[in-house]
Amino acid sequence: MTYDPGNIFGKILRGELPAYRVYEDERVLAFLDIMPRATGHTLVIPKAPSRNLLDVEPDDLAAVVAAAQRIARAQMRAFEADGITLTQHNEKAGGQEVFHLHLHVIPRHTGVELRPPLSYKETPEALAAQAEALKAALAG
Amino acid sequence: MTYDPGNIFGKILRGELPAYRVYEDERVLAFLDIMPRATGHTLVIPKAPSRNLLDVEPDDLAAVVAAAQRIARAQMRAFEADGITLTQHNEKAGGQEVFHLHLHVIPRHTGVELRPPLSYKETPEALAAQAEALKAALAG
Repeated sequence: MTYDPGNIFGKILRGELPAYRVYEDERVLAFLDIMPRATGHTLVIPKAPSRNLLDVEPDDLAAVVAAAQRIARAQMRAFEADGITLTQHNEKAGGQEVFHLHLHVIPRHTGVELRPPLSYKETPEALAAQAEALKAALAG
Repeated sequence: MTYDPGNIFGKILRGELPAYRVYEDERVLAFLDIMPRATGHTLVIPKAPSRNLLDVEPDDLAAVVAAAQRIARAQMRAFEADGITLTQHNEKAGGQEVFHLHLHVIPRHTGVELRPPLSYKETPEALAAQAEALKAALAG
């Protein structure tokens, strides 16, 4: 298992692809999933190269999860969520599609099922508004 | 949101209920899910009272995830897994059924779908053998 820097999250980290960024610190970047399983679905990634849970440095993993906690709390307010689901996929068999470690932080509402992965593409207008709402909640 | 110590994972922590324990340190306990979504499905919980991601102390969360990484690596060897899926559910709307924080660490094999949650009860003999295999991999 190796890390290929040409993956799309590597490109987002290097600014080669745009993203709806919502949070950043020295170790972590978080941005909206453009194919959300629910409104406000956010991805948290380490800035350091890491394929997935099996190779990530413990300090980077801890930073990713600490950021995910902050984001989850902010999502509860920003999207008036009733709960949060985390998922994280490792290797093809584990459901991984992009081979840079990422943690899915997904706001949930009572009675609303998750969309299947990669089944829905959100509009740019909605993503921009959701990013602003989440950034405001993170700052508040 | 409050913590009710009468939940079943609280009872496991206090030794009031048995569990197929596979890993323990000062902050964390891990044991097999008796209704596994795949063979070797393990739950990692903090020893400190915590309802879920929204209230857990950051140090406990970091310890849970660090243990999950060790367990995931051991599961790859113990169960000859091809990947790992992590899930973590917060509040009823997020899929939470037991209100003590727990992280699911699930070995995956190529082409094998996860069972639906709570759809299958593993035999005691199989759980005992899986716990031994996982403990050996963690020690090795």
